[in-house]
Amino acid sequence: MSFDEAYSGKVFIGSRTSYTDADLVLFGMPMDWTVSFRPGSRFGPGRIREASVGLEEYSPYLDKHLEDVRYHDAGDLLLPFGNPQKSLDIIEETMDGFLRDNKFPIGIGGEHLVSWPIMKAMARKYEDLAVIHIDAHTDLRTDYEGEVLSHSTPIRKACEWIGPENVFSFGVRSGEKEEFLYARTSGMNFHPFEVHEPLQRILPELHQRPVYVTIDIDVLDPAYAPGTGTAEAGGISSKELLQAIHSIGHSGAFIVGADLVEVAPVYDHAEKTAIAASKFIREMILGFPKAR
Amino acid sequence: MSFDEAYSGKVFIGSRTSYTDADLVLFGMPMDWTVSFRPGSRFGPGRIREASVGLEEYSPYLDKHLEDVRYHDAGDLLLPFGNPQKSLDIIEETMDGFLRDNKFPIGIGGEHLVSWPIMKAMARKYEDLAVIHIDAHTDLRTDYEGEVLSHSTPIRKACEWIGPENVFSFGVRSGEKEEFLYARTSGMNFHPFEVHEPLQRILPELHQRPVYVTIDIDVLDPAYAPGTGTAEAGGISSKELLQAIHSIGHSGAFIVGADLVEVAPVYDHAEKTAIAASKFIREMILGFPKAR
Amino acid sequence: MSFDEAYSGKVFIGSRTSYTDADLVLFGMPMDWTVSFRPGSRFGPGRIREASVGLEEYSPYLDKHLEDVRYHDAGDLLLPFGNPQKSLDIIEETMDGFLRDNKFPIGIGGEHLVSWPIMKAMARKYEDLAVIHIDAHTDLRTDYEGEVLSHSTPIRKACEWIGPENVFSFGVRSGEKEEFLYARTSGMNFHPFEVHEPLQRILPELHQRPVYVTIDIDVLDPAYAPGTGTAEAGGISSKELLQAIHSIGHSGAFIVGADLVEVAPVYDHAEKTAIAASKFIREMILGFPKAR
Amino acid sequence: MSFDEAYSGKVFIGSRTSYTDADLVLFGMPMDWTVSFRPGSRFGPGRIREASVGLEEYSPYLDKHLEDVRYHDAGDLLLPFGNPQKSLDIIEETMDGFLRDNKFPIGIGGEHLVSWPIMKAMARKYEDLAVIHIDAHTDLRTDYEGEVLSHSTPIRKACEWIGPENVFSFGVRSGEKEEFLYARTSGMNFHPFEVHEPLQRILPELHQRPVYVTIDIDVLDPAYAPGTGTAEAGGISSKELLQAIHSIGHSGAFIVGADLVEVAPVYDHAEKTAIAASKFIREMILGFPKAR
Amino acid sequence: MSFDEAYSGKVFIGSRTSYTDADLVLFGMPMDWTVSFRPGSRFGPGRIREASVGLEEYSPYLDKHLEDVRYHDAGDLLLPFGNPQKSLDIIEETMDGFLRDNKFPIGIGGEHLVSWPIMKAMARKYEDLAVIHIDAHTDLRTDYEGEVLSHSTPIRKACEWIGPENVFSFGVRSGEKEEFLYARTSGMNFHPFEVHEPLQRILPELHQRPVYVTIDIDVLDPAYAPGTGTAEAGGISSKELLQAIHSIGHSGAFIVGADLVEVAPVYDHAEKTAIAASKFIREMILGFPKAR
Amino acid sequence: MSFDEAYSGKVFIGSRTSYTDADLVLFGMPMDWTVSFRPGSRFGPGRIREASVGLEEYSPYLDKHLEDVRYHDAGDLLLPFGNPQKSLDIIEETMDGFLRDNKFPIGIGGEHLVSWPIMKAMARKYEDLAVIHIDAHTDLRTDYEGEVLSHSTPIRKACEWIGPENVFSFGVRSGEKEEFLYARTSGMNFHPFEVHEPLQRILPELHQRPVYVTIDIDVLDPAYAPGTGTAEAGGISSKELLQAIHSIGHSGAFIVGADLVEVAPVYDHAEKTAIAASKFIREMILGFPKAR
Repeated sequence: MSFDEAYSGKVFIGSRTSYTDADLVLFGMPMDWTVSFRPGSRFGPGRIREASVGLEEYSPYLDKHLEDVRYHDAGDLLLPFGNPQKSLDIIEETMDGFLRDNKFPIGIGGEHLVSWPIMKAMARKYEDLAVIHIDAHTDLRTDYEGEVLSHSTPIRKACEWIGPENVFSFGVRSGEKEEFLYARTSGMNFHPFEVHEPLQRILPELHQRPVYVTIDIDVLDPAYAPGTGTAEAGGISSKELLQAIHSIGHSGAFIVGADLVEVAPVYDHAEKTAIAASKFIREMILGFPKAR
Repeated sequence: MSFDEAYSGKVFIGSRTSYTDADLVLFGMPMDWTVSFRPGSRFGPGRIREASVGLEEYSPYLDKHLEDVRYHDAGDLLLPFGNPQKSLDIIEETMDGFLRDNKFPIGIGGEHLVSWPIMKAMARKYEDLAVIHIDAHTDLRTDYEGEVLSHSTPIRKACEWIGPENVFSFGVRSGEKEEFLYARTSGMNFHPFEVHEPLQRILPELHQRPVYVTIDIDVLDPAYAPGTGTAEAGGISSKELLQAIHSIGHSGAFIVGADLVEVAPVYDHAEKTAIAASKFIREMILGFPKAR
Repeated sequence: MSFDEAYSGKVFIGSRTSYTDADLVLFGMPMDWTVSFRPGSRFGPGRIREASVGLEEYSPYLDKHLEDVRYHDAGDLLLPFGNPQKSLDIIEETMDGFLRDNKFPIGIGGEHLVSWPIMKAMARKYEDLAVIHIDAHTDLRTDYEGEVLSHSTPIRKACEWIGPENVFSFGVRSGEKEEFLYARTSGMNFHPFEVHEPLQRILPELHQRPVYVTIDIDVLDPAYAPGTGTAEAGGISSKELLQAIHSIGHSGAFIVGADLVEVAPVYDHAEKTAIAASKFIREMILGFPKAR
Repeated sequence: MSFDEAYSGKVFIGSRTSYTDADLVLFGMPMDWTVSFRPGSRFGPGRIREASVGLEEYSPYLDKHLEDVRYHDAGDLLLPFGNPQKSLDIIEETMDGFLRDNKFPIGIGGEHLVSWPIMKAMARKYEDLAVIHIDAHTDLRTDYEGEVLSHSTPIRKACEWIGPENVFSFGVRSGEKEEFLYARTSGMNFHPFEVHEPLQRILPELHQRPVYVTIDIDVLDPAYAPGTGTAEAGGISSKELLQAIHSIGHSGAFIVGADLVEVAPVYDHAEKTAIAASKFIREMILGFPKAR
Repeated sequence: MSFDEAYSGKVFIGSRTSYTDADLVLFGMPMDWTVSFRPGSRFGPGRIREASVGLEEYSPYLDKHLEDVRYHDAGDLLLPFGNPQKSLDIIEETMDGFLRDNKFPIGIGGEHLVSWPIMKAMARKYEDLAVIHIDAHTDLRTDYEGEVLSHSTPIRKACEWIGPENVFSFGVRSGEKEEFLYARTSGMNFHPFEVHEPLQRILPELHQRPVYVTIDIDVLDPAYAPGTGTAEAGGISSKELLQAIHSIGHSGAFIVGADLVEVAPVYDHAEKTAIAASKFIREMILGFPKAR
Repeated sequence: MSFDEAYSGKVFIGSRTSYTDADLVLFGMPMDWTVSFRPGSRFGPGRIREASVGLEEYSPYLDKHLEDVRYHDAGDLLLPFGNPQKSLDIIEETMDGFLRDNKFPIGIGGEHLVSWPIMKAMARKYEDLAVIHIDAHTDLRTDYEGEVLSHSTPIRKACEWIGPENVFSFGVRSGEKEEFLYARTSGMNFHPFEVHEPLQRILPELHQRPVYVTIDIDVLDPAYAPGTGTAEAGGISSKELLQAIHSIGHSGAFIVGADLVEVAPVYDHAEKTAIAASKFIREMILGFPKAR
């Protein structure tokens, strides 16, 4: 019997390597328990895999083919519904395993809170870690209505662990007054509204540094990514986000892992959010990992 | 690391047993290559699994729990795009394996043509096989524009293998004139338009006989199942199909396997077709298998 | 060059006869200018033709085939936007032509006001005309905010022309208090809420009488026909409306024409309203016309 | 300046009386914080009001007009996001006020948990209170993953306050095994799967007793009400629920209040759930309150 | 009892001031009676308020918070269905009241005709009034099929009242030949196809002049605003419209009022049109009013 | 009787000339038999005509009116389902007829394979033919799973007939590695990712040469054209495609025909793809034909 993994959308296209043999591991984190407005990102990883069936395995942007990388789609983590702390513990422990095994991790959310334990594990491993954060929202709250574990807080946490000066935010166009105040006064590398231009300027600064990249799909305008929980008008296009991903990949930064979060398919019947997300992930798989 | 199968919709809820230990095997056949009007059923198995997350594991109709059966969701078969013959060969071979291993098979389509090799394998194993066919369409063509392998022909094939008098059709309300002529003159047990009433009458005749059950979701009215390729007005309700499934399960027939086909999620944004289909499958898992 | 009319949805399936040779003429009246709440029925005729591509030409209910009738789909009338009076004049004149040429007319709306000039022309030709009206709404207003030409008034008009005792309404479940008062006191044959049962009782009374049948798709529950301007919960199923159409066809009444109105496709993405409507029209073509 | 309340969907049609002069008060409880699967019912009250614009004010079922009752749509309660306890306190306090002022309350959810404080306040006022519960789900859990305040628990709570023998459940077709066990052994009046028939049988028992009626929209089949968080196949039709509402109104029971909950508009683009819900509420306003 | 206005979407977020204390008044004009193609904008104001719940109250573009302005959401005007003249009279009278009370008005449509009486009242108060008009359509017809009161005529009217040289149109990409001829020969400040660049050039000319701003949402490309009656391909992005709003606010013009019209939610299931519109309105509230 | 062609969406707006008198012929090719992923473009021509009702007949970009050209919408070709070879033969024969009759052809797909026989006929007539190809995909395969007649091969065929150096591709962003290799080494004029800039550079080279233009709607980003079979993120905007069409029309090239393909309406409920496509076709009708 030959039960297919790839065809039926159970793994992302081109996943042909076992975990042991893989250099890169793709994995889903189907969690949205702390989302206040419009949940649904728990269905993101599955639908992104399903949409990947419509992609070519070859990237003409990078002139590379998924056969050129050894990668393994490990599936989705089992995260206990309604229990953020336990969920984060599982993600952190998984991440420690990946790092121990020298795997390049690419995570698919789920809500943005999933990046918290990943960045925490990364910060433990890489002393001089920098974070590139591309998002419509600051995600810089200390808490949300008293709750620290929220999809509004992970970047604030990253600032605490690695210092605000090592966090580089791009494209942000929404947040509370206090968050913007923090962003502008804490020493963060904060580049609101735009992505491409400031990124071009900043990337040389990150030469040879270990960099983790976290991308919230809502940095795109709702025209390009309606399938997300907190769609915010005035964003960038898919083309611009592709450019940003390519710029990061072509830069001299030593990328150590990445994630793409907040795809919530229910709000997008044309499935263009998942279609775009699957392309971004293909480009990340092909363009991000390299020798230091 | 604990990667979850069930939660992320990769397996149908309640699948906790390995293939070896299981009595019942659930499997998908994501194929729609011969569909002329509105394809899309290749995405059926995946979305039905996804929808199963919203179900309870307990059936109050049967007072049984999915923990009460040992079953394994084997995933989807790898069927080669655009090659019906090869796809059917794979299904047939898989089915032979299941029967050799004494597994009770429940298949999820995909187009109705997938039932062809299953019924063929069943007919080889059970000499006195009967087929219960619940569908909006006759599926009795000898060919479709010259092509024998079509989603319009499987029931005609079954008639040829096991004799029309052993095929019991219910709920049919569409087909070509020639198909209805055949249905009415060949000796078939043909009960168009209605399901519940004729089924009640017929089931006693099938006492202790091996019976394969094939259900096309389009027997439901489009109000209940818009997500299908050839929606046909004037069908039955979800409640009536549940009753039919329960009647079959409660009858004295010796059910040997079953399938549910033609769920095409793209035409149904409210996802009610997949939601209903996942419930039908739960009831089939809980109600169909029994000792002879 | 062979430009196809039928395939591309430009004519209803099975239209193979010229106007001159046809016994029955199908025609669209794409008008919705007087609709206050949710317009869109002007797109009804086109989408119903498009949906007819998915139908079989054979009706197993009637054991008849569209090849058995000589009919011509004349396309849509050119009705001037925003000018109800002129539009009605055109319809009336067209109808007079059809009747002169001894054609059996089946009209597709458009809003219900299009039935007004048809019934008027019919009443001129047939002295003892009766009207069967199947609808969720009374349509018995004398005017709508002062306007006589409204989709709320055509049945009242019919009562005036042929006498309320010759108007038979079925399935009505919404209207103003004054309309229900009129329906119940004027002598009308008024059978609210239900269709099948009262129709069975009434049809013998219409033996050999000339009868015009006007069906508003919103008699169906919104579950079956969401694509309509004033969807009203609590309606009948597609199966029940099929039964009603078949009962009328099988009765001894001398049916002289019919229409189906108020399909507004924009509110129904699964297209089930147009799919159902195309089936109703096939059954009307096959079942309504007969020699007196 | 004349700012309109009714037309723009800000109040339910026909609300013309001030709170002080009203006999009946309609109010919304836009809360969905404890919903695990598909939230969204917080938008229910607003969309039901919006849909009411398409209704007539006259009910032909009851031959009554909204002008015949003095009622006031008080708008939506301000419920603090993410704080179920505080939200329930506010509802309970509001309910106490309504009862003190001798208003007949009709509440619109929101999730089913909103019925908890209402039933609590009712039980305090009416010693011999009975509850009629129409729902697809048992809602009989003692807690949901340890949390007592959940949309799965309110009917269990009602059983504790007024005794299970005074709770009458109809139409339930989903729940955990333990819930069904409780329902069947605790002394509850439990009538699963069906609504109309058992209700007819039971209503005479409730003659002259104070009865609170709580209706979860998901008792309808997803064909009729896709816009709800936990749609469950195999339900009843809108017509049957209308019949149930009318039966209750026509019975000798002394109805003291009612609610309709769990309309989540985002899952229903045709808006048929809100359209149906607005009609149910009109019939409840017209049919439920009467002198003892 | 604390019935909430803001939370349930009944008022735009941040409306905390009474009419009397407010400097700025927000109000809806739910009218679409003259729309020929695809009505539905009467539901615009309500859905924009509903979408505002998802916004932050702080604008990082302007570094201002809704708490920094005293504003009152007055709700929707009661406009009589199907009576444009009466509706316009009501709007005009309301506007006169606002101007008398020294309120800065921001109106939400409804169809573009609602801007007519507002501009008329403005022209009476401010002798040297200029109008900034951002739209996909010219709206310069003298009449539509003989009807002067049409959503195609308001800008022509403005030209007549204040002189074409005081009307500044941007972004127009559709209209009749005669309208473009008028636009190009009458002396109007007509800048078709583009918004940002010509606006930058023109704004200095408007220094210290009283300026009324009217924005039709269809200036956006349908990718950004599918929810509108006459979507026209080839438009600008949400980002560009935000820039335009900010440019106007930052210019030396003395803005005296503004409106945003033609949001028709039914054509946009992802609700991105209302989501974008609510953000534009927040920026207008925060950025437009200032001392002369 | 006056049955309207244009109003009811049966012909594209402004078609007023008979075939004989027309200079330009518009025609549909409703074929999608070779589409592997998401079929549906067979419904493209009909929906584009329907959407054209919402357009003005005047183009402000070109200052031309549809009355200024004599054109005839010939309707859709009758193409036999599932038979690509026969379908292509019919198209080729039709095209030969058009060329013999000196008509300027504008074709509407259907899948991209329909361009194959058109280009073949064109290449026969014009020795020095050049092709401008605007598309998201290379369409340069020699075959698709062994099948030469595929929507992935037509541009490869064109290269074979007229030489790769005479094929000018713009905007391509997806394909197989081998296709890109061919594109880059065969001598093709291959300009991936961008459209406007390279087109500006290239057009002077085509001065006075006969040029056929084939546009695949998926060159647009899915934000602008979700209604297509293989939507590919990272595309251009509607505005950029309009610019490209205008640049081609304004260039000195001698355009001899054009097509627009791959609109598949089912994936786009807001109908923005058809709305945009109808505008592109209006601009092609007005801007492409001219004397040599």
